[in-house]
Amino acid sequence: MVTRLDLFIDRMVSQRACIDFAIAETDAMDGPVFELGLGNGRTFHHMRERITGRDVYVFDRSVEAHPDSIPADHLTVLGDVQETLPQALDRFGATASLIHADLGGHNLEKNDAFARLISPLVEPLLAPGGIMVSSDRMYFDALDEMPLPAGAVKGRCFVYRR
Amino acid sequence: MVTRLDLFIDRMVSQRACIDFAIAETDAMDGPVFELGLGNGRTFHHMRERITGRDVYVFDRSVEAHPDSIPADHLTVLGDVQETLPQALDRFGATASLIHADLGGHNLEKNDAFARLISPLVEPLLAPGGIMVSSDRMYFDALDEMPLPAGAVKGRCFVYRR
Ligand SMILES: C[S@@+](CC[C@H](N)C(=O)[O-])C[C@H]1O[C@@H](n2cnc3c(N)ncnc32)[C@H](O)[C@@H]1O
Ligand code: NI
Ligand code: NI
Repeated sequence: MVTRLDLFIDRMVSQRACIDFAIAETDAMDGPVFELGLGNGRTFHHMRERITGRDVYVFDRSVEAHPDSIPADHLTVLGDVQETLPQALDRFGATASLIHADLGGHNLEKNDAFARLISPLVEPLLAPGGIMVSSDRMYFDALDEMPLPAGAVKGRCFVYRR
Repeated sequence: MVTRLDLFIDRMVSQRACIDFAIAETDAMDGPVFELGLGNGRTFHHMRERITGRDVYVFDRSVEAHPDSIPADHLTVLGDVQETLPQALDRFGATASLIHADLGGHNLEKNDAFARLISPLVEPLLAPGGIMVSSDRMYFDALDEMPLPAGAVKGRCFVYRR
């Protein structure tokens, strides 16, 4: 039987593999990076360390992260993503080079419903060539699902490219 | 630079490797297993699934775990381990086959001080041949530090045997 510890390790390892892959693939782009869901701030900390020359904006309802992983004020977008993503489209247009989303909780059905809800809000933000990494399957019209990079575990993360 | 995500993955992977190793090594023993620090309950869930024929007692100040990872009432020892470990010695004697501790938080100095404080409370609980796995270095008089099993990362966990 797969334990919660096993699943959690697979998810963390997959996030890192997909994020590192997406950073490398979008290295030549200079549009902003969006982190949807700050949480404890571990993946944000990872992206902020690994990404150079691009702003990493964080979207969350509130900032409750570890002290080492607090985004700068001007890179923090507070509010429900159902409202802040459409606002981001007005502000940034289709410029994002990389979007990472880890917005889910323990309820898989709820996560899936929410992924359906926000997919059309995320899709128009990506620049051509931009990559979206998600812990939940997304429902995009025109983005292609990419094969997972080495080290990622099937079903634990999803990668899409515009 | 090692990120918080890297460190966290190393810690989880090391916990699993050391716990699985310790379970296998103590398989023939039937003394109880003690989980010190329930937290989210991931390592408890892992031990409860992987260990057969031994009771897994959980020590924590309060039960705040994921619904899938709540220990049975008669296996829950509520309170500060500084008080509940001496009580456990009166109740169980030196019978524990496996003790896992993950009591620390973000402050490494505080974790180290706490590990020094509770080492003499943990040490007498182990049966001969019993194993202690810890996320922090412990300060035991008579237990031997064991080499880490394959997959564990040096410094992220510690294994001791009586
Ligand atoms: C890092 S969490 C454990 C995480 C767990 N290994 C998991 O996989 O989810 C640490 C836990 O230790 C508990 N703890 C810390 N100090 C304690 C003390 N002095 N007495 C009892 N419990 C304590 C905290 O309440 C917390 O639930
Ligand atoms: Ni869950
Ligand atoms: Ni910390």
